[in-house]
Amino acid sequence: MSGGRVFVIGLGPGPAAWLSPEASATLAIVTDLVGYFPYVERAAPREGVRVHASDNRVERDRARHALELAAEGKTVGVVSGGDPGVFAMAAAVVEALEDGPPEWRGLDIAVVPGISAMQAAAARLGAPLGGDFCVISLSDNLKPWALVERRLEAACHGDFAIAIYNPASRARPRQIHDAFQLLRRLRDPETPVAFARAIGRDDERVVLTTIGEADPGLADMSTLVLVGASTTRVVARTERAPFLLTPRSYGAGR
Amino acid sequence: MSGGRVFVIGLGPGPAAWLSPEASATLAIVTDLVGYFPYVERAAPREGVRVHASDNRVERDRARHALELAAEGKTVGVVSGGDPGVFAMAAAVVEALEDGPPEWRGLDIAVVPGISAMQAAAARLGAPLGGDFCVISLSDNLKPWALVERRLEAACHGDFAIAIYNPASRARPRQIHDAFQLLRRLRDPETPVAFARAIGRDDERVVLTTIGEADPGLADMSTLVLVGASTTRVVARTERAPFLLTPRSYGAGR
Repeated sequence: MSGGRVFVIGLGPGPAAWLSPEASATLAIVTDLVGYFPYVERAAPREGVRVHASDNRVERDRARHALELAAEGKTVGVVSGGDPGVFAMAAAVVEALEDGPPEWRGLDIAVVPGISAMQAAAARLGAPLGGDFCVISLSDNLKPWALVERRLEAACHGDFAIAIYNPASRARPRQIHDAFQLLRRLRDPETPVAFARAIGRDDERVVLTTIGEADPGLADMSTLVLVGASTTRVVARTERAPFLLTPRSYGAGR
Repeated sequence: MSGGRVFVIGLGPGPAAWLSPEASATLAIVTDLVGYFPYVERAAPREGVRVHASDNRVERDRARHALELAAEGKTVGVVSGGDPGVFAMAAAVVEALEDGPPEWRGLDIAVVPGISAMQAAAARLGAPLGGDFCVISLSDNLKPWALVERRLEAACHGDFAIAIYNPASRARPRQIHDAFQLLRRLRDPETPVAFARAIGRDDERVVLTTIGEADPGLADMSTLVLVGASTTRVVARTERAPFLLTPRSYGAGR
């Protein structure tokens, strides 16, 4: 198994301008690419690279396969959208390592960070995450929904801004509705909310609304939902999309 | 003021390999660079670029100056370490815009996202932020310390992993000690903690410990502190630094 390596590579939200030089350089040396097929495609494998594309929802199998290939001496790139450390493949790889044969513990494994969807969304919107914030995935594939509710409640009690990942999928269309029901109980209806879809890609779309007015049905698999804190406000601009601002300061007035 | 633009540019944690192509391309077109002097230096201004470097702690003045220059028609780069949207210059610029003359509302302002310190730290440590997490700055320059405590408590009640920015500075050596006192009341003493200092730079250092054993005095201005959730654990490796894992799944056992 000498020489085998695994790189867990963050591809960022989509555009090449957000792909780090480290990620590009790493993609240039891998012998094998493992990942959910749209990410493998986005990684644009060079000729000669063996591609192991798989469906979504099999992260653990994919991670184990990557470690097996590395144990055979391959230089494996596991590709993730966004940042592999944020609701992506880094955890799956370390989990597979933990559960795998002891030999794997000697493999050279590195995570190559990337820009995550919340950062792309925040950039488009000005400064919605300018203060303290929470990052929550609504997927209950791997955790009980009661925990998601407990965390949304805690985020409200702490008056954090909230970045919501995985708000909905075809298999889970209801969660974002349930989350908004909870948020409406605990936060002012005027609190700004943004639905930021596919930021950086051709079909990018931002909808700015409030907790009271939001249509949670706007959220799909490609949407990042930003929920403001009590201090978050809209800053209007002239003939441009408004900004969202969670100021650094906290207290009465500005 | 026609043609004036402001780009709020994330330089990432330090190494060029983590500077996005968008950030590089933007640095290549600015006429003026505004920022805290080490960041301006890191941006390596081309010949002819006018440099407006300033001390730390004057973010609002710096932001206002950038908008003034743009209003004169300049193409201004406001440089930030990490991601400008995370405890950096994006909020300062939008705050200055909100408080400034109405003409500024028509300026072309864009945020160029970057990799933030928590992502660099998480990458080095495997997957410490693999589940839901909170991001908290301990600086109380702009918010009351009681709010920081309320947020740390909420983060514990929600069993989030926690990324702590600005844990200490020369003017605020005590906060991280106070924060650990609070965390020790609310979290198991065996909870993993990492002090990740200057990740990606020459003097990079990672200390892995527990809430019970941690020496908060290890944290300085360049340190990102990661505090685990109840599920966070250490994954030992052979002749390599151990990983930290906050698994995606939650519940009894694996």
